Amino acid sequence: MWIIGELINCTRKKVGAAAQARDAVQIQEIARKEVQAGADMLDVNGGLPGQEAETLSWLVNIVQQAADIPLCLDSADPEALRIAIPLCKHRPLLNSITDEPARLEALLPVVKEHRPKVIALCMSAAGPPMGVEDRVATAGRLIERLTGEGVVLDDIYVDACVLPASTGAEHSKALVDAVGKIVSRYPGVHCSAGVSNVSFGLPQRKLLNQVYLTLLMAHGLDAAIVDPCDRQLMMNIRAAEALLGRDEMCMNYLRAFREGKLEPLAA
Amino acid sequence: MWIIGELINCTRKKVGAAAQARDAVQIQEIARKEVQAGADMLDVNGGLPGQEAETLSWLVNIVQQAADIPLCLDSADPEALRIAIPLCKHRPLLNSITDEPARLEALLPVVKEHRPKVIALCMSAAGPPMGVEDRVATAGRLIERLTGEGVVLDDIYVDACVLPASTGAEHSKALVDAVGKIVSRYPGVHCSAGVSNVSFGLPQRKLLNQVYLTLLMAHGLDAAIVDPCDRQLMMNIRAAEALLGRDEMCMNYLRAFREGKLEPLAA
Repeated sequence: MWIIGELINCTRKKVGAAAQARDAVQIQEIARKEVQAGADMLDVNGGLPGQEAETLSWLVNIVQQAADIPLCLDSADPEALRIAIPLCKHRPLLNSITDEPARLEALLPVVKEHRPKVIALCMSAAGPPMGVEDRVATAGRLIERLTGEGVVLDDIYVDACVLPASTGAEHSKALVDAVGKIVSRYPGVHCSAGVSNVSFGLPQRKLLNQVYLTLLMAHGLDAAIVDPCDRQLMMNIRAAEALLGRDEMCMNYLRAFREGKLEPLAA
Repeated sequence: MWIIGELINCTRKKVGAAAQARDAVQIQEIARKEVQAGADMLDVNGGLPGQEAETLSWLVNIVQQAADIPLCLDSADPEALRIAIPLCKHRPLLNSITDEPARLEALLPVVKEHRPKVIALCMSAAGPPMGVEDRVATAGRLIERLTGEGVVLDDIYVDACVLPASTGAEHSKALVDAVGKIVSRYPGVHCSAGVSNVSFGLPQRKLLNQVYLTLLMAHGLDAAIVDPCDRQLMMNIRAAEALLGRDEMCMNYLRAFREGKLEPLAA
């Protein structure tokens, strides 16, 4: 399981304020905590109105001083991504390309030039997907376009678009089924998800995020943008990998147990 | 989700000793706790060597004094089941019929006479199943035999046989996939599982049980023999039902939240 830490996101109030104030120490502290908790990669989102490109570049530079793992560059602004990619020490993951023509055409040249890994988000000009089939169809169009441009399947992470369950539980179920279909139709492609969106507007969000990630893993999800500091979520991931045959002889599970990582932290 | 409490099982040391001593108070206390925690049905297993039929009948009688919900009669001994069924106040679930000829032929007349619901356990004369396809094939044979005898699909609970992940993680993955195939091939049939078997021989068993149940629910499991007093497990069930569109408008989830049931109990 590829765990992408979600905490360095300027749409979160505290992080946005820290980025606005260019408080590197506070941001770097979060980065270290995510790495310590087990993140394989850090998402960085510089979504401050009117200054996203500058903020993203600043984040990339200061986060890399604190964390020696790859970054997931998270922006809807192709220009911010274009500027940030060359700053990355490790090969980054671009978050994201969509099936919206303007965004797609703006980012494809960037992908061809810099060869980042790519999140292919199932979002089209018509807006977010509503069911299983339109998710699978959009994923298919994006995969074909990207592989047609020379991107290998192993570098593509399909995000079939998590919508809040509070807007209709059929959305959260549809994504679970879509992941299973995409994984079986395109062997070798990865599936990722911005899991925390599912719980927006509902109580006990962590519980929903924890359980949703497990439901998605059951259908083949192998990457996720999540809070790695959520201990229960990380425990669930270790258990799910062991139970899904993705952890030979349960070796990682047993190691995590010996290291004391399979028990909730005392409050 | 149909939650079958697993705690009244004489193969558990304390329960076996209490049953041996005919300590009704202790057994009834467990029954009350399971009901209180949210069990929809109670499994009763009288597996004391040489006295299973008597013990099962005794358990049925005393448990029914404490708990006004249906029982799941759990025995490999057709005679013990035959004697216990008529004692049940509510329509019981027979646990289980298998594809082993002697057991099947002994129990079919009992099923036809008393019309209990039936767990169809995917176990054949060749022993426990090893993969996805033999589970699906055995389930198919049992379903066809039972429906041929007039049992409706809605009364059949396929148990595709949980094996310990410690004996090979391919087993636990195979069951997850088998559940998905059985549910899609036989619409209307139920799928159940004795979830706790999966964690036998591994540390942090509760964590594995919790996560395994969620993985199975992702593929359509709608009943499970579990410990209803495991708070995290019950929280996960509520969340999974909401996320899988099995809880309209998340009403049960929101009610559980208002009743304070979605937070771990203070130690």
